[in-house]
Parts: sequence; structure tokens; C-alpha cells
Amino acid sequence: MKVNYPNGETKTPEIKRVKTHGMLFEEAINQTNEYYRNKDLAHIYKKPTPVQVVKVSYPTRTKAKIVEAYYRKPSTTDYNGIYKGKYIDFEAKETNNLTFSFTHIFSHQLKHLEAVKKHGGLAFVIIFYKKVDKVVIIDIEKFMELYNIGLKGGKKSISYEDALTVGIEVERKFAPPIDYLAAVDKLYF
Amino acid sequence: MKVNYPNGETKTPEIKRVKTHGMLFEEAINQTNEYYRNKDLAHIYKKPTPVQVVKVSYPTRTKAKIVEAYYRKPSTTDYNGIYKGKYIDFEAKETNNLTFSFTHIFSHQLKHLEAVKKHGGLAFVIIFYKKVDKVVIIDIEKFMELYNIGLKGGKKSISYEDALTVGIEVERKFAPPIDYLAAVDKLYF
Repeated sequence: MKVNYPNGETKTPEIKRVKTHGMLFEEAINQTNEYYRNKDLAHIYKKPTPVQVVKVSYPTRTKAKIVEAYYRKPSTTDYNGIYKGKYIDFEAKETNNLTFSFTHIFSHQLKHLEAVKKHGGLAFVIIFYKKVDKVVIIDIEKFMELYNIGLKGGKKSISYEDALTVGIEVERKFAPPIDYLAAVDKLYF
Repeated sequence: MKVNYPNGETKTPEIKRVKTHGMLFEEAINQTNEYYRNKDLAHIYKKPTPVQVVKVSYPTRTKAKIVEAYYRKPSTTDYNGIYKGKYIDFEAKETNNLTFSFTHIFSHQLKHLEAVKKHGGLAFVIIFYKKVDKVVIIDIEKFMELYNIGLKGGKKSISYEDALTVGIEVERKFAPPIDYLAAVDKLYF
């Protein structure tokens, strides 16, 4: 897979986002996963944000205090686990714009999702379009079709309307807040 | 599952260990996973160590520096991913003693591995017996049988010899250093 989006590899906008505006969407997915676990429907977790620890102090003998560390680029995606006997893996993204720009996802994350799909897992991107308050899941193969069109000089983003043509909208509820497994069922089962 | 090992829930010996003696075994597993990925045999990663970030400073506009943070207890296990279309999940442990004590594994990690197995995944514990320089994988069901005997007043640890009777020994090689998937094949496929 050839990947040459400008900034695609070097910028790390996601990491900062996760700590600020991203929190609500991430929190909603985490709550959803907890709901699924409590019902024993699926066991899916968010991976911890990777941190490079440089210096640790021991103010007491029992507790280590990290005093110098830096965020690292995640190796893979945000979430993975098991659902209906299948390995499930996805990246969660949100956008303040009407379209989701491909510069906001790392190419190594896409490669990882492609590998998961190839090995028989469920692999997708879940996008929260904040402006219209909608959530859509897109299977990695469909996502890559649009991504590759972008690489060849076509559109370098996915609008909410485009997302609906290739993906499945996620119903919003009280509990679970982001019932994405219902969309996964429609997409894969 | 009733769990009442003294200190089983409150002590966190693992976290400290990971940063010190644990590194070599962890490093060997990480190298093994990288080998598997390069051969496209399996896509398995170590989850980042969870860190609770309290304070971040911005010495430059582009780089966030974490200046106060603490290690958190991991939600699940060390490693997960996909192998032969199956979800695979395991916890890696090492011991300086001739036996592996059950106090060195969190009960919520065992519950997680049991849930994975129940949902059709491959779930096991991989133990490195440093004194004899041997590595064994034990399926979570077999592990829990021994664990539960311990809860009822029996042996509260697994010796290398016991491990061999219920698990599969992992061959040590130059590349990959810890070829645990060969043992997984014998155990599950």
C-alpha cells in the first residue's frame, strides 16, 4: 500500500485531541463497552494511550511518581476485543468539520486494520460527525477504496453523506450511548 | 468466581516488575510478535502500560511534556491480537522462584481470560521460570483448575513440573526468541 498523504506520518493531531475535545466521544464508547461487558455480549477495551516514561521518582516506598514522560504514537488502533467469537478491532475518530479528512488517521493504523480483516477479524473505522451529531461505522475495505481514490488525486475526505453510502449509521441511545455492535451486526453478520 | 487470595487485589507487584527485571522476557515476547507480524503469521501486540496523567506542561507549542503521572492497574492482560482467524489473549508472567505464586496475577485478569475463552477466543497464561530458564503456556481453564484448588486450601502456586503436566513448553530459538505460537498450535489446533 503506497501512502503519501502530506503530514500523514509526521503530524500527530490525534494524541492532543484525545486529551481535550475527544474525551466525550471516547467516554461514550468506553461506557458502551462497559455495558457490553456487563451483559457479557462482547469484551472490548480501549488500549491505554502509550506513554514513554523518562523519569520516575519515589516520594514514598510504595508509589512510583512519573515526573517526565511523553505521549507516543499508538502502534495500532484504539479498541480491540472479542465479539461473537470474532476478533474485533477499530479506530474511533471524530471531526468538527462536515467531512472527515484522511490526514487525521495514521497510515500504519489503516495497514493494521487491513491485516486484521485479511486474517478473518472485523475491522472498521467509527467516525463521529460532531456538526450533525451522527456516528457511522465503515468497514476497512470500503474505507480503503475511498482512501485510495484520494491518493490518486480524488477526494481526500469522507463526508457524512458519503459515509452513509458505504457504512452503517450507529443508533444513539441512552444505554448503551453508542450502540455500535448493532451496526456491526448489520455490516458483518 | 470466588477470589480471596490475601493481597490478590490490593498489591500491585507486577507494575513495578515490568519496569525492572521483567523487561527481558517482555522484550523477547515483543520481538517474537514483531517476527510474527513481519511474516504475517499473527498480529499480536503488547498493550501499553496504563498511566494516569495528572499534569502536562507545554515547553514548546508542539510537544506535550507529562510532568506528573502514575502507573495504573491494567484493565485486562498484557497481550492480544489475531491468529488463524481467532482472537488470542494472554498474560505474561515470570518468576524468580521455582514455582509461580497465584498472588502474582490479578483476579480480574483471570476473569477476563475466562470470558475470552467462553466467547471462543484463545486464552492462556505464559510463564517464564527464570531459575530453570523455561517457558510454558497454560490454557486458562487448566490454570483455573489449579487456581481453584489453591482457593480451597491446596497448593497456591504452580511449579515448573506442574506446569508441564497441564501446559505446553515453549521452544526457545534464535528467531523468534519465544516461539509461543508453536505451543499454541499444539494446545488448540
